[in-house]
Amino acid sequence: MLPDLKGGFELDARLDTDSVSLMWLGLCELRLMNDCRWPWLLLVPQRPGVEEVHDLTPLDQAMLTFETNMVADALKRVTGCTKINSGALGNIVRQLHVHVIARSEGDPGWPGPVWGYGSRVPYQPDAMHGLIDKVRKAL
Amino acid sequence: MLPDLKGGFELDARLDTDSVSLMWLGLCELRLMNDCRWPWLLLVPQRPGVEEVHDLTPLDQAMLTFETNMVADALKRVTGCTKINSGALGNIVRQLHVHVIARSEGDPGWPGPVWGYGSRVPYQPDAMHGLIDKVRKAL
Repeated sequence: MLPDLKGGFELDARLDTDSVSLMWLGLCELRLMNDCRWPWLLLVPQRPGVEEVHDLTPLDQAMLTFETNMVADALKRVTGCTKINSGALGNIVRQLHVHVIARSEGDPGWPGPVWGYGSRVPYQPDAMHGLIDKVRKAL
Repeated sequence: MLPDLKGGFELDARLDTDSVSLMWLGLCELRLMNDCRWPWLLLVPQRPGVEEVHDLTPLDQAMLTFETNMVADALKRVTGCTKINSGALGNIVRQLHVHVIARSEGDPGWPGPVWGYGSRVPYQPDAMHGLIDKVRKAL
């Protein structure tokens, strides 16, 4: 029997519904939010029961920073956006997840935050796969 | 003449107006947003011209993570809040600053984000100094 390397980690049902898997990083699963209004990525550390970044071990905190900033840099290069918005909120979904969003002047809700703004607009399959390919190549 | 250790760093005028200095950390100035609706701290890395976390040097990125998580842990202990919200947005004020906010169920705008929600409500002086003292002691 193979060991359970993820130690019982199970993705939150709401995150599973709202986003799709893009690739695996060292600590996190990188996911794309299925909302074509903004290029919006999620990093989900594979650690069960953790809600706050400061509750990760120091090594995991460093890994999360490294992976988040690598992803943010790639997303900015791929999209040519004005500004990256990153954050860990978790008021609704408590499982720790970090948002990395490409924002541009005039996008929906600009210059306000994306969270809670209107309703999610799913991608057309071609557009989703095009963005996923670009992000994968940039990483 | 003393050397200019901050290398020409000057706090953004909007941040200066909206928040007050709480203490100096290694990389960042820690400030309290003057908005009594939520206990809301800001970390401002003393690096001129930087807008994105991923544009800091790797050492500064690690320092920022360490300082942010130390502050988040202290703010959660001091307030007993439900959830820390942390983020770097910068759509309006481009100078890099990281928000660390104590959120609790039923607070203004819950469970939505605080950014762009209503208008800032300044503290009464006693309430502000009480919170500043508690945060300083917890750090």
